[in-house]
Amino acid sequence: MFEARLLKSGQLKKILEAIKELLKEATFDCSDSGIQLQAMDDAHVSLVSMYLKSTGFDKFRCDRNLSMGINLESMVKIMKCCSNDDIMTIKAQDNADTLTIMFETSNQEKMSDYEMKLMNLDQEHLGIPETNYSCVIKMPSTEFARICRDLSQFGESVIIACTKDGVKFSTSGDIGSANVKLSQSASIDKEEEGVSIEMQQAVCLTFACRYLNLFCKAAPLSPQVILSMSGDVPLVVEYQIEELGFIRYYLAPKIEEDD
Amino acid sequence: MFEARLLKSGQLKKILEAIKELLKEATFDCSDSGIQLQAMDDAHVSLVSMYLKSTGFDKFRCDRNLSMGINLESMVKIMKCCSNDDIMTIKAQDNADTLTIMFETSNQEKMSDYEMKLMNLDQEHLGIPETNYSCVIKMPSTEFARICRDLSQFGESVIIACTKDGVKFSTSGDIGSANVKLSQSASIDKEEEGVSIEMQQAVCLTFACRYLNLFCKAAPLSPQVILSMSGDVPLVVEYQIEELGFIRYYLAPKIEEDD
Amino acid sequence: MFEARLLKSGQLKKILEAIKELLKEATFDCSDSGIQLQAMDDAHVSLVSMYLKSTGFDKFRCDRNLSMGINLESMVKIMKCCSNDDIMTIKAQDNADTLTIMFETSNQEKMSDYEMKLMNLDQEHLGIPETNYSCVIKMPSTEFARICRDLSQFGESVIIACTKDGVKFSTSGDIGSANVKLSQSASIDKEEEGVSIEMQQAVCLTFACRYLNLFCKAAPLSPQVILSMSGDVPLVVEYQIEELGFIRYYLAPKIEEDD
Repeated sequence: MFEARLLKSGQLKKILEAIKELLKEATFDCSDSGIQLQAMDDAHVSLVSMYLKSTGFDKFRCDRNLSMGINLESMVKIMKCCSNDDIMTIKAQDNADTLTIMFETSNQEKMSDYEMKLMNLDQEHLGIPETNYSCVIKMPSTEFARICRDLSQFGESVIIACTKDGVKFSTSGDIGSANVKLSQSASIDKEEEGVSIEMQQAVCLTFACRYLNLFCKAAPLSPQVILSMSGDVPLVVEYQIEELGFIRYYLAPKIEEDD
Repeated sequence: MFEARLLKSGQLKKILEAIKELLKEATFDCSDSGIQLQAMDDAHVSLVSMYLKSTGFDKFRCDRNLSMGINLESMVKIMKCCSNDDIMTIKAQDNADTLTIMFETSNQEKMSDYEMKLMNLDQEHLGIPETNYSCVIKMPSTEFARICRDLSQFGESVIIACTKDGVKFSTSGDIGSANVKLSQSASIDKEEEGVSIEMQQAVCLTFACRYLNLFCKAAPLSPQVILSMSGDVPLVVEYQIEELGFIRYYLAPKIEEDD
Repeated sequence: MFEARLLKSGQLKKILEAIKELLKEATFDCSDSGIQLQAMDDAHVSLVSMYLKSTGFDKFRCDRNLSMGINLESMVKIMKCCSNDDIMTIKAQDNADTLTIMFETSNQEKMSDYEMKLMNLDQEHLGIPETNYSCVIKMPSTEFARICRDLSQFGESVIIACTKDGVKFSTSGDIGSANVKLSQSASIDKEEEGVSIEMQQAVCLTFACRYLNLFCKAAPLSPQVILSMSGDVPLVVEYQIEELGFIRYYLAPKIEEDD
């Protein structure tokens, strides 16, 4: 028996919005420590890793480890039926081939339940090595989304160059070239409104705009995004989900021809 | 001579939005008691009945009974030209082949008039028998619209089952199944914000989602919708229009094959 | 060396929105008095004239007169990358084949620069004769936009008839006919919220709705629009840009066949 109860169903709604354009189907691995999802996107370019810890839920029970293959498009349709403040419960029997999702309003006068079929999905087990990153950049998630969207008008790739003073995003294409420079914030009232940089070594890497834009769909989950970079290893784009866990995207840098 | 003056032209705008997807053309029957419209939708599945009583208008004069055949698409275009708070006057001569619609702002500094051609439409006279319904459900019109929209993601039909305790909307399809249960409201400050049920006998009937969704276009007319149901007779979906009248939609239940 | 600094980049953003549907490319003529643009639209029906005076800029330097051929679609893309309150600087070297546009936030923590290629455009030099207009109508720019949009639902042409008492916009088509009359405002708190008319002689002219609608894209630049008309000369539709200059559109009246 698996059962997880979440006080704000809006959180899971936003998580699905954040992965549905990368993954059509995905396996949610449930254990007594929480729910984990790890998958290459459908084009096998980037990797999505989500973890929701059991203690972040209002109630959480998982008698046996369970791998649920889920059609994300169907689950998005179900999640559209809830209001953000509805209480949500996910339930599955051991070895069940269906998942039940329930929503209730706080006054309990509206109760909905949706039963969806589970799928058998092949699952690759992916190891993500622990890395000490040369640069860790924290910045407002809306600012990162804005820059990725702006620059993708001009080119297909964006160069992210990080130094102690700041981070520079650059691209160029038929129209011309574009550079956006963010300085480390001088002083800020709220940490998540500023830009902060921890740097061991300057880094300059090139990434596909298209994927950065897809990762930015997670911005509603967190006011802050954390970019971790080292030479020649994948960029990590991380959004922390308040009290619940995180979603991380991994994207390998492009090998520039002029290197 | 027919002349009707309405202080809030927004009301007629919303009425047209509520019927324009069901009817391309319609006959407005004007008499000294008011304006009536009764018509099967273009696919001859549902019936629309609208009544605006003469006393709900600021001024109302109808010397001779008049049947005006109106192209609703054209009238919608004209209504788009008014602001919701404009004062509206509709005018036609006896036996005229045109209708004049006038809008004026309350300070009278903007006056618009639109003349549209009337049409000769065949008119079926439809009798709607008086019925004592087994269940009468009052609920917020936005909630009903939300449920119809949500469930139509999953199936083409929705089963409405009404008992003393509440009303359940259900559907199923390729993705799985969905149930939404509303309980009778315990106590509410405003009647139109709650769910109330008057029941002689429990009823369970199946309807086409597509039509329920079309009826829900009337939600802006009223905070409350009234559903009246009895076994084997058409469902009535009614929206009362404050001080002016009502719009009612009739839809026969689907005959389930497994009956 | 050309350099112009504007405290609110939103103003130039709105200017580009106001001309981009009429012109694909345009020459910006820079001199020490300011920046001027004058061009027939791509279909050679209307004329656009924009003037931004040097004193309206925060800083302005133009060592040598400079004609910059600009692809407006590309420049619109660049302008989309700024926030309305960003400080903007435009820079070009004498005889340069590129233009640099820079945006900075007021706290200077975000700095962006965009370099775009300039084009060699053939330039017609257009003389616009000074005219004493028979009627000059000032009205809210949103009201003018609303009327043009409303009437273009009914016909391709709109007749603008101006008398001492007011101005009437009329059209007719398959659906029927439409007239919108605005009276001179009795008394108004803010000049730009009312309608005022200066008239030497009544005028009645016919114009293409399509172009009037395109001119109305400039409404965000100014709360007021000024229409100047005389018999048989082009209508002028003018939007003043606060402290910076103006944009004017010229459109010849249609010759009615029944004249």
